Amino acid sequence: MTKTLLPLAAALCLAAPLSAQSQADAPGGHVDLAVAASEALENDTLAWDFVEGLTTEVGPRQAGTEAERRGREWAMDWLRAHGFANVASEPFAMDTWVPGDVWKARITAPFAQELIVQPLGNSAATAEGGIEGEVVFFPSVDDLRAAPAGSLAGKIAYVSHQMRPAMDGSHYGFAGPARWVGAGIAASKGAVATVIKAVGTDHHRNPHTGGTSFPEGVDPIPAAAMSVPDAENLERMFERAEGRPITLRLELNPRRIGTTMSGNVVGEIVGRKPDLPPVLLACHIDSWWNAPGAFDDGAGCGIITAAALNVARTGTPLRTIRVLMAGAEETGLWGSKAYSEAHIDEPIAVGLESDFGADRIWRFESNFRRTNPGLHTKLAKAVARFGVADSAVVATGGADLNIVRDQEGALIDLQQDGTRYFDLHHTPDDTLDKIDPAQLRQNVAVWTQVVGILANEPRAIRDAGTVPSAPAIMDR
Amino acid sequence: MTKTLLPLAAALCLAAPLSAQSQADAPGGHVDLAVAASEALENDTLAWDFVEGLTTEVGPRQAGTEAERRGREWAMDWLRAHGFANVASEPFAMDTWVPGDVWKARITAPFAQELIVQPLGNSAATAEGGIEGEVVFFPSVDDLRAAPAGSLAGKIAYVSHQMRPAMDGSHYGFAGPARWVGAGIAASKGAVATVIKAVGTDHHRNPHTGGTSFPEGVDPIPAAAMSVPDAENLERMFERAEGRPITLRLELNPRRIGTTMSGNVVGEIVGRKPDLPPVLLACHIDSWWNAPGAFDDGAGCGIITAAALNVARTGTPLRTIRVLMAGAEETGLWGSKAYSEAHIDEPIAVGLESDFGADRIWRFESNFRRTNPGLHTKLAKAVARFGVADSAVVATGGADLNIVRDQEGALIDLQQDGTRYFDLHHTPDDTLDKIDPAQLRQNVAVWTQVVGILANEPRAIRDAGTVPSAPAIMDR
Repeated sequence: MTKTLLPLAAALCLAAPLSAQSQADAPGGHVDLAVAASEALENDTLAWDFVEGLTTEVGPRQAGTEAERRGREWAMDWLRAHGFANVASEPFAMDTWVPGDVWKARITAPFAQELIVQPLGNSAATAEGGIEGEVVFFPSVDDLRAAPAGSLAGKIAYVSHQMRPAMDGSHYGFAGPARWVGAGIAASKGAVATVIKAVGTDHHRNPHTGGTSFPEGVDPIPAAAMSVPDAENLERMFERAEGRPITLRLELNPRRIGTTMSGNVVGEIVGRKPDLPPVLLACHIDSWWNAPGAFDDGAGCGIITAAALNVARTGTPLRTIRVLMAGAEETGLWGSKAYSEAHIDEPIAVGLESDFGADRIWRFESNFRRTNPGLHTKLAKAVARFGVADSAVVATGGADLNIVRDQEGALIDLQQDGTRYFDLHHTPDDTLDKIDPAQLRQNVAVWTQVVGILANEPRAIRDAGTVPSAPAIMDR
Repeated sequence: MTKTLLPLAAALCLAAPLSAQSQADAPGGHVDLAVAASEALENDTLAWDFVEGLTTEVGPRQAGTEAERRGREWAMDWLRAHGFANVASEPFAMDTWVPGDVWKARITAPFAQELIVQPLGNSAATAEGGIEGEVVFFPSVDDLRAAPAGSLAGKIAYVSHQMRPAMDGSHYGFAGPARWVGAGIAASKGAVATVIKAVGTDHHRNPHTGGTSFPEGVDPIPAAAMSVPDAENLERMFERAEGRPITLRLELNPRRIGTTMSGNVVGEIVGRKPDLPPVLLACHIDSWWNAPGAFDDGAGCGIITAAALNVARTGTPLRTIRVLMAGAEETGLWGSKAYSEAHIDEPIAVGLESDFGADRIWRFESNFRRTNPGLHTKLAKAVARFGVADSAVVATGGADLNIVRDQEGALIDLQQDGTRYFDLHHTPDDTLDKIDPAQLRQNVAVWTQVVGILANEPRAIRDAGTVPSAPAIMDR
């Protein structure tokens, strides 16, 4: 973009076919940006190689553990081997919870059988041998909220929900509270344990784990997710029990192991003007202990690194492109917070994160559509050929972009199709075979196109200096 | 069929529309058979009620255990509640293997991570703490067969296969030997343990168990199935290890518990001429310990009982309809053998089994197309309206029909669409939600139609006395 500083030239560029525009961008002897993006769509292998290698050679990477450390080292080796500069791990301390290895649930009456459960992050342990209690059925977390104080004394709360697949992932917000706050609410009303219908959209017996939390002053209780088929089975038991109490024995042995070290992995494609604020591309390197983390978030790390390398093929960019593979995202954004704390005084030009699986990108969002409409529109038009629609939704950035939010900087969300995401999220089924290589390549193509433009943008990104009215966009 | 004994009348019936034919069959005041079958297609709830109840109130039913006993008792209660006569359990003794509760596998080098395994039926236990060895990769059981004698001393054999979904289930025969004989072959060549790619067509981390066997004189070794994603991950490790040995630690604690009791559940719709050989409808009541057994074979038991009750609505049939819910099918056809031994001198008119899930029936097969072409064709034409094609394939009968095979009697196979069957077979994912109620009802409709005709057939079924040439059928 160094050649298109004049407003007139910029306007011409926006109207011109993208390939012509990008040819103008590419320094001689290098691949044109549009060509690099098109080639990524056809035959990128970098993202696949990253996620295949990480899931095969490391596997699950629970935050704060030795497995996460191996993940960091594997990622640093990969970045160095592929030519990234300034590859490093930035360590931080965290308060670490581990799941243990005993996760048993058995209906003891009236329909004795095993159910399949996994503990929720921050769950307390039961006594050895387990805890038994009558199950109280709450169809939703709102029903649980309505239960009288003390009414769950000695009981086990079961919290359900009605999550369905949604392209934009919005049902995570709809159903997620069952996990996020269900156990804490139940504990505050005297429950001895909580089981929830796993927050997921599949029907496989691999429960979705994830973090839960307990309010200040409420002691953690054992908390577990049961798979959706198990939860539906339990609900059928209530229909068939004809008023007889349903009792459950639950045994879990997770524990807190105190302070351990995690770390953020960083690496750079150093720009021609390294004093300009960098473009920050984020993902997270950790996964839950039960999940190889292909969709969440090995793919995201593969996509951002592949895009950075593809942009480098078009010539050294104006700005530095920095990748941030955050540690300990799953258990409380430890890495995101640590990165912001350490680097808050170093301005970021713009932040983007890939952390919603590996299915195709369908929507472009920024938080500068009103403040820098020229750039917003240029970016949106540049990715239209990949089936990505413009949107008036204001980007809020991924979980590991705390630093950009703290700086009130520019954010872009390249929204992926999340229809399948919550089939796999936080489960053992989050494996490499779930990734569609063609959709993964579409991600890399879109990211290459967007990052290539951003890394060559000389002006401030969130606010280029003028605030004309935003372009009209049909959005629903 | 009592009204259509004359050959001419029979020929006219074959040419007439089925509804007219069936109206002729139905005694006054009862539902016409074709109507009963059509109503089953629209609104049968009996089969669903059976499989929902069994999977919800009992769950997994490992052969020879207390859980299988509860399954038998539940089924007898259901049969009695729905008006079956002569409901009984016919006990038999069996040699019982149970899976234990420790099933751990961990790659220890070079890519340390847990793999998900389940023991195969008849597996030996490892020492406590497990056994560790270098893994030797065999792409197929034929490759394992080709390994030199003694070449696996101290090693762990890994056996793969290339199973794909197939409507007719034929890939079970193609891939099944990896499980059926892989461990025995490996043991005979000195292997200390065997792991196989689970014999299944899904990509979920719930390994398919099932029986394996060891040749006479070969001591059983620990044998486990790993889920397909885990197996693919292990195979990628071989590609990435660059010749470094891959070592696995395996810990399993299955055991033989000696002789225990199982039993066959029987019940009858008693016919008007109980001295005529009965129509035998079979399924099996047991499941593997890890599987609630909705597809395998709760649905089958639901289908046959629903069909028997629907036929009873059309008036008392000429012949008795007997349902046989065999015990201990999964671990070696113990119930099928016991039933044949106990009843070999009591002729069976014809045997049919439902044991291939709950998806739609698409093909009609008998073993009397050449010996009783009139009846074969009548039956095939009667179910054509439900989307079931005639076939020249010779029926061989389900696993629990040993008595019919031993008697060289008449068999019919109502072939179900098995495309999804091996996604679920012998896994924890074999749960109620996998059953499509509409396809389940199609099964009940077809069975109602077929059993209604058979139970009112006065002549011998396999050979009615004449042997004209078989009708020409296009079959592939």
